[in-house]
Amino acid sequence: MITLQDIQEAHDRIRPYIHRTPVFTNETINKLTGASIYFKCENFQKIGAFKARGGLNAVLQIIERQEANSLTTHSSGNHAQALAYAAKKVGLPAYIVMPRTAPQVKQDAVRSYGAQIIECDPTLEAREEGVRQVMASKGAVLVHPFDNDRVITGQATAAKELIEDLDTVLDAMVAPVGGGGLLSGSCLAAHYFSPSTSVFGAEPEGAADAIYSLKSGVVEKPSFINTIADGLLTTLSERTLAIIHAHVKDIYLVSDQEITQAMKMIWERMKIIVEPSAAVALAAVIKNKEFFAGQKVGIILSGGNVDLAKLPF
Amino acid sequence: MITLQDIQEAHDRIRPYIHRTPVFTNETINKLTGASIYFKCENFQKIGAFKARGGLNAVLQIIERQEANSLTTHSSGNHAQALAYAAKKVGLPAYIVMPRTAPQVKQDAVRSYGAQIIECDPTLEAREEGVRQVMASKGAVLVHPFDNDRVITGQATAAKELIEDLDTVLDAMVAPVGGGGLLSGSCLAAHYFSPSTSVFGAEPEGAADAIYSLKSGVVEKPSFINTIADGLLTTLSERTLAIIHAHVKDIYLVSDQEITQAMKMIWERMKIIVEPSAAVALAAVIKNKEFFAGQKVGIILSGGNVDLAKLPF
Repeated sequence: MITLQDIQEAHDRIRPYIHRTPVFTNETINKLTGASIYFKCENFQKIGAFKARGGLNAVLQIIERQEANSLTTHSSGNHAQALAYAAKKVGLPAYIVMPRTAPQVKQDAVRSYGAQIIECDPTLEAREEGVRQVMASKGAVLVHPFDNDRVITGQATAAKELIEDLDTVLDAMVAPVGGGGLLSGSCLAAHYFSPSTSVFGAEPEGAADAIYSLKSGVVEKPSFINTIADGLLTTLSERTLAIIHAHVKDIYLVSDQEITQAMKMIWERMKIIVEPSAAVALAAVIKNKEFFAGQKVGIILSGGNVDLAKLPF
Repeated sequence: MITLQDIQEAHDRIRPYIHRTPVFTNETINKLTGASIYFKCENFQKIGAFKARGGLNAVLQIIERQEANSLTTHSSGNHAQALAYAAKKVGLPAYIVMPRTAPQVKQDAVRSYGAQIIECDPTLEAREEGVRQVMASKGAVLVHPFDNDRVITGQATAAKELIEDLDTVLDAMVAPVGGGGLLSGSCLAAHYFSPSTSVFGAEPEGAADAIYSLKSGVVEKPSFINTIADGLLTTLSERTLAIIHAHVKDIYLVSDQEITQAMKMIWERMKIIVEPSAAVALAAVIKNKEFFAGQKVGIILSGGNVDLAKLPF
């Protein structure tokens, strides 16, 4: 069980390597929603996403306890960069198993931190087999993107900072949910540091599984996967579901059109760049504005890594 | 002559209506340039650009001294929104003369602040004639976008904040130059509040006039106008030239390609949205990186109003 002290220690551990990202507000968006929204800008975080927190917390603990001399994961997204960044900071080699179809820009980002890419076929089986091979041949330890207590504890520090940096108490907090690392970390942070704050997940209709897992209490698979929010394609693990089941009040679904509109609103009104997955939480607040009206709502803007050549607007 | 006290009073006057915008730094851009760059993020300012400062300072003084009961200007850009915003804050009607070719999105923005748009032909003569008519028929007072001491004094507060908010002294400050309101305000702020800081202008090759005016000492016209930096198309006035001549060390020219590359770098690396005109200063620092290497350089990111449907990348 992840404790309050775990989150505090994680924060102290990673603090030298991360940005304390700012909290932004926007009058126009507040008027439109009727809520007072506080945006935690993890798009400004190292590697452009909150994932730097969890990756660093895991890797720094691996170093502290001398558990391994190299690191591995499979990811084509922000966690790949996060692990590569963390590995570079501590001076360990990292082997990132990536599907050979991963965009060149993402491969370049991982290489820019000095990590080695192991190419594989673009299936979950091939990715997991690739990681097994690296673990066997290199003695590398796996840092899973979300099914890992240290990673979840690191992610919790974003919501912890948001809570600490406000001079008011949030009525609600909304975070996007894919594998559930950010959402489970966020609801644990609220549980320990702001217990009167209700925590909600926001999920794309085109990768809807957490909402059903929360209702049934077992890990459900999505009926189909097709969404612009490419950071939220994964399914909960039993670990993240258990935390979310205990501490998350509800999960809201939003369509790709609603995600795109929310993303455009953030770009145009707040003048900041967020990726589609990061706009899912605002889309959920806009869609449920009768519920959130009059509330103080924290939103975790999870990341800002987008391909400017492929914008949805 | 604009005094230190004028700038301090302007700052006190407008402070309730503006954001004290943050100063951002970026490791990657520092590595690339060899300089330590401090970005003053006026893209986060009210109406999305520094122009809110000058407009407010002028309008608030007009109110204090009861000089007029309505306001006018001609602009198709950020100053139109700035004057409309300032007029709304003080409750005066504003008549904005805009060419009928101005983008709908800019007309909508002006109307959203309650200002009235007077359409005219897209020539400078028609715009000036439109303003003359409004002044005659409505008794409105003109708030010129840059040829106005109060406007210049307001713009100076951006550089003043940048100087105040750093715990170090800048070696250099770079601001884009069109009509020269921002650059003349910035160099006055440095002159009074950070006299060891050298101030530079950055100008598009496709609207090159300030660089020649600075050399000749008289207001020169550009030989042609064709640039993506649509906020910098105007020519200095004698008023702005006099200030720039006294306090600006040099002006650098950059091409549209260099502007676009700098803009893309800011979007991708800093995760913030800036308009092409705002990227001109970074483009100048990159182009002259041998000169700026090792220096602490302040850059005024002037604004973030772009049409997302018409990006140059």
